[in-house]
Amino acid sequence: MEFLVNIAVGWPADGDPDELARLTAAERVRGAELASAGTIRRMWRVPGRRENWGVWEAEDATALHAAIGSLPFFPYLDVDVIPLAAHPTDPERPGGH
Amino acid sequence: MEFLVNIAVGWPADGDPDELARLTAAERVRGAELASAGTIRRMWRVPGRRENWGVWEAEDATALHAAIGSLPFFPYLDVDVIPLAAHPTDPERPGGH
Amino acid sequence: MEFLVNIAVGWPADGDPDELARLTAAERVRGAELASAGTIRRMWRVPGRRENWGVWEAEDATALHAAIGSLPFFPYLDVDVIPLAAHPTDPERPGGH
Amino acid sequence: MEFLVNIAVGWPADGDPDELARLTAAERVRGAELASAGTIRRMWRVPGRRENWGVWEAEDATALHAAIGSLPFFPYLDVDVIPLAAHPTDPERPGGH
Amino acid sequence: MEFLVNIAVGWPADGDPDELARLTAAERVRGAELASAGTIRRMWRVPGRRENWGVWEAEDATALHAAIGSLPFFPYLDVDVIPLAAHPTDPERPGGH
Amino acid sequence: MEFLVNIAVGWPADGDPDELARLTAAERVRGAELASAGTIRRMWRVPGRRENWGVWEAEDATALHAAIGSLPFFPYLDVDVIPLAAHPTDPERPGGH
Amino acid sequence: MEFLVNIAVGWPADGDPDELARLTAAERVRGAELASAGTIRRMWRVPGRRENWGVWEAEDATALHAAIGSLPFFPYLDVDVIPLAAHPTDPERPGGH
Amino acid sequence: MEFLVNIAVGWPADGDPDELARLTAAERVRGAELASAGTIRRMWRVPGRRENWGVWEAEDATALHAAIGSLPFFPYLDVDVIPLAAHPTDPERPGGH
Amino acid sequence: MEFLVNIAVGWPADGDPDELARLTAAERVRGAELASAGTIRRMWRVPGRRENWGVWEAEDATALHAAIGSLPFFPYLDVDVIPLAAHPTDPERPGGH
Amino acid sequence: MEFLVNIAVGWPADGDPDELARLTAAERVRGAELASAGTIRRMWRVPGRRENWGVWEAEDATALHAAIGSLPFFPYLDVDVIPLAAHPTDPERPGGH
Repeated sequence: MEFLVNIAVGWPADGDPDELARLTAAERVRGAELASAGTIRRMWRVPGRRENWGVWEAEDATALHAAIGSLPFFPYLDVDVIPLAAHPTDPERPGGH
Repeated sequence: MEFLVNIAVGWPADGDPDELARLTAAERVRGAELASAGTIRRMWRVPGRRENWGVWEAEDATALHAAIGSLPFFPYLDVDVIPLAAHPTDPERPGGH
Repeated sequence: MEFLVNIAVGWPADGDPDELARLTAAERVRGAELASAGTIRRMWRVPGRRENWGVWEAEDATALHAAIGSLPFFPYLDVDVIPLAAHPTDPERPGGH
Repeated sequence: MEFLVNIAVGWPADGDPDELARLTAAERVRGAELASAGTIRRMWRVPGRRENWGVWEAEDATALHAAIGSLPFFPYLDVDVIPLAAHPTDPERPGGH
Repeated sequence: MEFLVNIAVGWPADGDPDELARLTAAERVRGAELASAGTIRRMWRVPGRRENWGVWEAEDATALHAAIGSLPFFPYLDVDVIPLAAHPTDPERPGGH
Repeated sequence: MEFLVNIAVGWPADGDPDELARLTAAERVRGAELASAGTIRRMWRVPGRRENWGVWEAEDATALHAAIGSLPFFPYLDVDVIPLAAHPTDPERPGGH
Repeated sequence: MEFLVNIAVGWPADGDPDELARLTAAERVRGAELASAGTIRRMWRVPGRRENWGVWEAEDATALHAAIGSLPFFPYLDVDVIPLAAHPTDPERPGGH
Repeated sequence: MEFLVNIAVGWPADGDPDELARLTAAERVRGAELASAGTIRRMWRVPGRRENWGVWEAEDATALHAAIGSLPFFPYLDVDVIPLAAHPTDPERPGGH
Repeated sequence: MEFLVNIAVGWPADGDPDELARLTAAERVRGAELASAGTIRRMWRVPGRRENWGVWEAEDATALHAAIGSLPFFPYLDVDVIPLAAHPTDPERPGGH
Repeated sequence: MEFLVNIAVGWPADGDPDELARLTAAERVRGAELASAGTIRRMWRVPGRRENWGVWEAEDATALHAAIGSLPFFPYLDVDVIPLAAHPTDPERPGGH
């Protein structure tokens, strides 16, 4: 099942730059793992913001929570999850155009 | 450039069923054309609602407006457009994983 | 997978009383079918409103949409769906207290 | 009387990890007691968030407040309570299907 | 149990004046009955609006819904219900000052 | 004139417990004085929250501000005031049922 | 006592122009009466909208409601009332600069 | 003085197409006049919506209201006006880069 | 040109009382200067809140920003500005009743 | 492609004044560079607020994000981006009046 996920990063403006660099590097690694595993299917940055939209795939909301919770930045994240149903116009739906 | 687009269909509950059927059929045809052209890259239904989220690709906002305005249901649509920037974790970005 | 579903009924105040009675009776029948099938697990009325909260179970958002869309009142409904993940305190979770 | 309760945990991202572990363990114990007592009837996690939805049963809002206020995390919680009335479609209502 | 109830009347500006007069008169009668029964304990008009705030007493949310649903204007009402718990400062609480 | 007043207490979760206890005790004393004076006519707790709704009586908004500003917790309060007009259904209005 | 009052006029775009002209003329007359009586002390139009902000003076919210309810456009109005307390910087307060 | 103006057109989906064509043509003419007069300095369409953002210049809010009110679509418009102050980075401010 | 200005003071509850006293005194002085200069024409306190509504007069938004920015509390303020146009009912408009 | 960009500066009221002066000076320099490059085409201050609206030009959202992210204040900014499409009334559109 696919989910549309909005993630805003609430890192404090006066946060420790070393910790930010460390978390950012770890986040990239974990993000790449989730992308390789097919959990993160698409991800875009919202221009001007520390915020992204992603298309995630997981068996259910419990598995999705485990995946999001594995992100190194998780304690700093504000996450909104929108469940997605199949649409006949979707070119990538099973059996689609 | 990609855009995340939310479309809610404001068809009135007491609208003419024949007109609804006609518009729905025309919308499917136009949606398939936009998908074939690569303008609609993904589309999902929001469960329980006459509403969808889609990933659209267009040269700019002017071209995107023309594409959305070509939908037969356009006069009934409430549309929100979110511009999308590249994210390093995106598996489908140019040069991505 | 379970979903928390809020349904508000937008029946117009000056709607035809006979049609309202017909739809209400059909809604009760369809609701009972969905309850018997285990799709509707709990349902409560919001006091003072034509609105309910329900716990629905469906394989995924696509199946949930089909179930909600089968309600006779569907064209008049404003529906919000919240995906639910397992919580260790839940007494009814598999293997729970 | 049943209540639908949304609880968001406002634990600071830079909070003391030992205190977080201590509170989490105490919360599990108190949650299990409230579940055993029939006060917490269902509880789900909102995916991606430190937030849950629960179905609580209490004699009235005063008793519900006492139960929620007994949670070890209470000073950090943002809680919304929705009173619930009986719905004829509810499979678990007294006399229900 | 007491509830704080906000009721906004959505009567259309171009509604039939005779029907409005008939409903208003019937509403006064029913309101007086609910006040005499102790269900409506206080009621105030929001200045400038067809809207009121009231303190209602009912055994639970199901009984409250039945009381509100008995108002002749019910199909035109937008109602919000806030459950109320005892507060030690309340002069009218049982055993209060 | 009566006012409906919502007060949310923004005490920080990591605030000094001794100061909290001192302020809470002082608030109870001041609340009782305002109740005895007829300024606070009713007060209820919002279940699950450090928040209350109250019916306050004061000559005008200036006098009401002075009364609310005399609460020991005032620097921590988020207060919303709704002016109230007489409603014919109110059992306690002058000349009421 | 003074009140800050926001009034938005919900006249339908396809409303009868003659009725609109009649109501507008009557509104001007009634507005002038309320201004002469000192009930309307200031009034401004919100640019681009059929909406105004006004400073009204009335003995209490009940008297204010009667004044607003006497406007010919009342059935079409959406009105918000903010109670106002004295501020030491106000040049027009009693005893002010 | 410059103003940022958001205009959403509330034309009904089932409105008369001839009237829509007539109003659209008249709006173009009036828009061009306002642009020639320097009142409309910039205007953009919001993609996917019958909505625009514009930079308007007028002596004050009263003159701006007159200009907006002269649009043929005015009865159908929902307009928000944001007053603008000079910013040192603005390339077009008097004396700017 | 007149503006309706809402100012909320975000002084922290645990802020230094001496600094608060110093800023409050300086604010009174600056407020009186702006009132004497005719920039602040009216000002009211919102009951129960560190918030005020004021009617300000300034040549344009740039001059208004300079006036508001001269308030000693400015770094702590959350300010909303509503531009005001003339209304025929206003008793104080030029040429008014 | 043009974008309408709203930027609110979340500098803390008790922030270090020297750092604020340093960042403000650097921001002016970077702002002037972006204006010279044609990236910032217009910029206005919102009166009473540390907030601005700007018209930015960039090839796409990715380039816009890079430009906004180059601002020295970026960690303190809350940024909203609205994509803009061409409007026939715009005097500065290619081929416009």
